[in-house]
Amino acid sequence: MPQPSPAAEPEPSRSQARRRQILDAAAICFARTGFHGTSIAALSHATGMSPGHIYHFFANKEAIITALIERKLERSLELVQQFEKAEDIFQALIDRVDVGFYEKTDLDNAALELEILAEAARNPRVAASVQAADRIKRERLIGVLRSVQDAQHPAPERAQTAAMTELLMALFDGLAVRIVNHPTIDREVLLPLLRTALQLLIARL
Amino acid sequence: MPQPSPAAEPEPSRSQARRRQILDAAAICFARTGFHGTSIAALSHATGMSPGHIYHFFANKEAIITALIERKLERSLELVQQFEKAEDIFQALIDRVDVGFYEKTDLDNAALELEILAEAARNPRVAASVQAADRIKRERLIGVLRSVQDAQHPAPERAQTAAMTELLMALFDGLAVRIVNHPTIDREVLLPLLRTALQLLIARL
Repeated sequence: MPQPSPAAEPEPSRSQARRRQILDAAAICFARTGFHGTSIAALSHATGMSPGHIYHFFANKEAIITALIERKLERSLELVQQFEKAEDIFQALIDRVDVGFYEKTDLDNAALELEILAEAARNPRVAASVQAADRIKRERLIGVLRSVQDAQHPAPERAQTAAMTELLMALFDGLAVRIVNHPTIDREVLLPLLRTALQLLIARL
Repeated sequence: MPQPSPAAEPEPSRSQARRRQILDAAAICFARTGFHGTSIAALSHATGMSPGHIYHFFANKEAIITALIERKLERSLELVQQFEKAEDIFQALIDRVDVGFYEKTDLDNAALELEILAEAARNPRVAASVQAADRIKRERLIGVLRSVQDAQHPAPERAQTAAMTELLMALFDGLAVRIVNHPTIDREVLLPLLRTALQLLIARL
């Protein structure tokens, strides 16, 4: 395996920018040519950085996929935090449906997500990263839903809240599958319907 | 490319059995090592058939993926037909939730589905097969939902029924994503909740 670049350690902000540059390029390459179809040479070409420089940041392609999973988790948790901080959590969930909707029905985003999941289904190390990130996000979302349900009498059992969270996650995750199956999906009609469905499910289940 | 096997044309039933054998092996190989990670040599090894014999049935790997998509569509349409023929379609949909639920939350099945979708997201020919199959299934499901909604007053617009169908398909398709993210999902709690959610959504939207 190539050694880390002998160049002097770059300053943090510059280093972060380089790291982000590699992740951005990897996100596009993994989606377009697949994880196994993307070589470090291709990432080198896409970023204009030498392979040694890329290895300075990431030990291998799996480390890049792990970093992409962590980055996606961070972005998800930023949204979850907005729910947690909201005065009216139920209303915040309904109001922000569009964020998840447009993210999940973005074809490039869906392509990357499906490629990572397909790899996770056969690669135990990628599976571990995906599942660890999902656990963190899921637990936080269960907490959010729990806060909404605490106002209900009687509040459901925790296993029910967990299952309800799964159901809502399935609904959003499924949009990524739908957009590949049906790229001309009618977003204008689907988004308001999704919002109504969410209101109904959270209020009644 | 290898020529078709010079062996005499096998009789239809034997030929169908051979074809099925290749598809069964390909389903496992594509899920476990990926579409690009599976060679015709690997399929030859898995089936005990010569590469030439495999090429006799399928021109290339893409033809195998297309056949897998078609086979999955046929199975889906058998279930859809049960809905269409049911005396009480709404009840049939609710009663048969478990069929889709266990299929989508089967890890091997999810792995294959996600691999095909990831390939479809970057390969226009696979995308065309996936989307053609999805269109046929979707139109039939819209018809089923339409039959249920015809009993409602006033019956929703067709665009609403189509969007509602998308939403329900997203919910089921999303289960395949969930099972990779969370393999220890609590099926015992989730299945009845999914059934209740479906009842609620179909009756109210």
